[in-house]
Amino acid sequence: MEPTPAYRTLDATAIRALIASLPTIAARLGGASAQWQVREVSDGNLNNVFLVGGPSGEVCFKQSLPHVRVDPSWKMPLDRTFFEAEWLRAIQPLTGGLTTEFLHYDPDLYVLIVESLSGHTVLRTALMQGAHWPGVAPRIGMFVAHATFGTSLLARPFEDVFTARRLFAANLALTRITLDLVLDDPYRDHPRNHWHDPALTPIVLDIRSSAATLLAVENLRRRFLSQPQALLHGDLHTGSIMSTADDTRVIDGEFAVYGPIGFDCGMFVGNLVLHYFATPDRAARQATLHDIAAFWHRFHDEFLALWISHDTPPPGTLHPLAYGPAADVARQRFMDEIMADTIGFAGVEIIRRIIGYAHTADFDTIAASHQRATCRAGALGFAYYVLEHLDQVRTMADFLRHLAEHDGTGLPGPG
Amino acid sequence: MEPTPAYRTLDATAIRALIASLPTIAARLGGASAQWQVREVSDGNLNNVFLVGGPSGEVCFKQSLPHVRVDPSWKMPLDRTFFEAEWLRAIQPLTGGLTTEFLHYDPDLYVLIVESLSGHTVLRTALMQGAHWPGVAPRIGMFVAHATFGTSLLARPFEDVFTARRLFAANLALTRITLDLVLDDPYRDHPRNHWHDPALTPIVLDIRSSAATLLAVENLRRRFLSQPQALLHGDLHTGSIMSTADDTRVIDGEFAVYGPIGFDCGMFVGNLVLHYFATPDRAARQATLHDIAAFWHRFHDEFLALWISHDTPPPGTLHPLAYGPAADVARQRFMDEIMADTIGFAGVEIIRRIIGYAHTADFDTIAASHQRATCRAGALGFAYYVLEHLDQVRTMADFLRHLAEHDGTGLPGPG
Repeated sequence: MEPTPAYRTLDATAIRALIASLPTIAARLGGASAQWQVREVSDGNLNNVFLVGGPSGEVCFKQSLPHVRVDPSWKMPLDRTFFEAEWLRAIQPLTGGLTTEFLHYDPDLYVLIVESLSGHTVLRTALMQGAHWPGVAPRIGMFVAHATFGTSLLARPFEDVFTARRLFAANLALTRITLDLVLDDPYRDHPRNHWHDPALTPIVLDIRSSAATLLAVENLRRRFLSQPQALLHGDLHTGSIMSTADDTRVIDGEFAVYGPIGFDCGMFVGNLVLHYFATPDRAARQATLHDIAAFWHRFHDEFLALWISHDTPPPGTLHPLAYGPAADVARQRFMDEIMADTIGFAGVEIIRRIIGYAHTADFDTIAASHQRATCRAGALGFAYYVLEHLDQVRTMADFLRHLAEHDGTGLPGPG
Repeated sequence: MEPTPAYRTLDATAIRALIASLPTIAARLGGASAQWQVREVSDGNLNNVFLVGGPSGEVCFKQSLPHVRVDPSWKMPLDRTFFEAEWLRAIQPLTGGLTTEFLHYDPDLYVLIVESLSGHTVLRTALMQGAHWPGVAPRIGMFVAHATFGTSLLARPFEDVFTARRLFAANLALTRITLDLVLDDPYRDHPRNHWHDPALTPIVLDIRSSAATLLAVENLRRRFLSQPQALLHGDLHTGSIMSTADDTRVIDGEFAVYGPIGFDCGMFVGNLVLHYFATPDRAARQATLHDIAAFWHRFHDEFLALWISHDTPPPGTLHPLAYGPAADVARQRFMDEIMADTIGFAGVEIIRRIIGYAHTADFDTIAASHQRATCRAGALGFAYYVLEHLDQVRTMADFLRHLAEHDGTGLPGPG
């Protein structure tokens, strides 16, 4: 996608001028545009992000760049804010207050303006600072249940789903990134891969020579591209979530694509596992085990509740033909499939965050380099174990038991 | 889709005028346009079809109507010839001489012009006339293998596949027909269902009260809409094939959509099974068993051969990570999935052709009504058995053994 002739990267002055031309948003900020504070908060890898504040309020301003923000040599089409805007419009009516309010999209400048969350903290940062907010994980479970159920064939006529799939199947550049960085590069020699700790190298070599693991990754790659069950967030790590103790919002939906529901679940679970291994404190680890369980159980129960409440009258194309116990069997099979995907995608997410291109900051809280290496090796070894033994790690209880056993603390899992 | 202002249903005079304005096609016919013979051969349920012949050659002219041809009260968008044209353009380079040559598409008139096959017979008609051409079934196996492999993620970068999926995901009207007529209506009371023989009613009631069967149909419906493995023909019955003893062509791709590969296989196998039950002659039945086996084995072997020959260098996004015996395991799993879909979709195709909206002519060759009823009941009972016991009918050998046992002749299957 070539930049439109009108495209230019906006600086603070241009951002003020643009917002001044949008009466509803200008009124939200209040005062004269010359007085608005424009503060850059770009944090992710891809886009320019600014908070723009006036006397009455603040908004978040996001603009695509024609390249990866942190690597200008990596060219990229501008349309990612378009997909984020469309994602927001699709899931906001389904997920209540669990995302940010959509305010404006400019198709020439690839600018998206949404509600500001300046009182919230990025969840990864909060976790690294030792915050424990037990409400967050179940809120994400609610979010995934409503966003995925409501965009699936269970809730909507297939014509609506096919039309939405068509829109998001154009999100090629970011889907290619997921495919390469999550599901391909880490499993072979590639210049984008890197890890600092030589202690990890033997595990990497083991992973790359394990046929069972490679087959599991091949299967996940196929499922990512060929199971368009629902509209995914597509990048649901703890950096895509902003929260306080009481209010949680999912942001940054630019990777949105139709795919397997367990992909979103697995990204979130995988990032909680990274936090788990980056936090050697016994009580904190126990709390993270509970977070993972709370996320899954809330997701599972809410998804099933939505499904059952939709049975009469059947609104989606996949309304049941069989009722009673047979319908329960069909639903359980579908939930088991999501569970299997969740475990698999959690595994590849953990691996790519340790040996791939885009690492996470979780382990930076550990001062001693040998301890960092040990913790990373623990996470990597766990993910390897899970992917190599997917046929034995089939339920959330299995997953948590193995996680508790893998941490070296000897703590029992939460069952 | 509203008709374009230029749209009108063309009569013989208008067809001559249109073709006269297309120099390449006019030259193919030769002579003066006033002398061209225009002969209506509309046969399917949906479109007007004419053969237009001149001194040097003949072409096939197809135009969408704003309704179902055989039921003007059933309104329908005109774009089906567009999807047929796009299907032809996509699969013709992959399938050699196994379809018709694309000649022209007119987007205002929804007119598709292709190579004429006036020397060929519709396969269903040929079968009903007792022709046995052993080359046809393996040629269809070749056709399905090349058309599906070549449009899948195994052969092409995901960007190409997503772009093609987007195009065919707009084929909503005909996908809705498949969904309703094949995968929904027959399993409940619906005014479009009908069957003449009261002897069938108890089997219909049994099917509709069998939880295992209904769950199998639900699963097939989900797979039809959610497994976009490859570009399907979408309606591969024996009326969509024209043949001589030596030359076989697949036509009528207007139902084209991305879906599970076993859907096309199952449609073809299901229609051979209908012919099997409509032909009480022992030797003819044995020949049909061999046709079904020959179709499947040629499809299976050719698909695998294409896959293996594509491994180095990997051109598709689903290139393998694991090689050697592990890759064989992955390939076998994928082929088993296609086999399971083939058996399931064959089952629903048989059922809908006997108790749904669109029956086939196969059974019309049987003069005595009680014998027609017996033969239809045999086919219906077989399909019911297969769908209710999918976990026991897992290979082509299983399928053929049960088919031979179900026919009442006591013949052994071909193994």
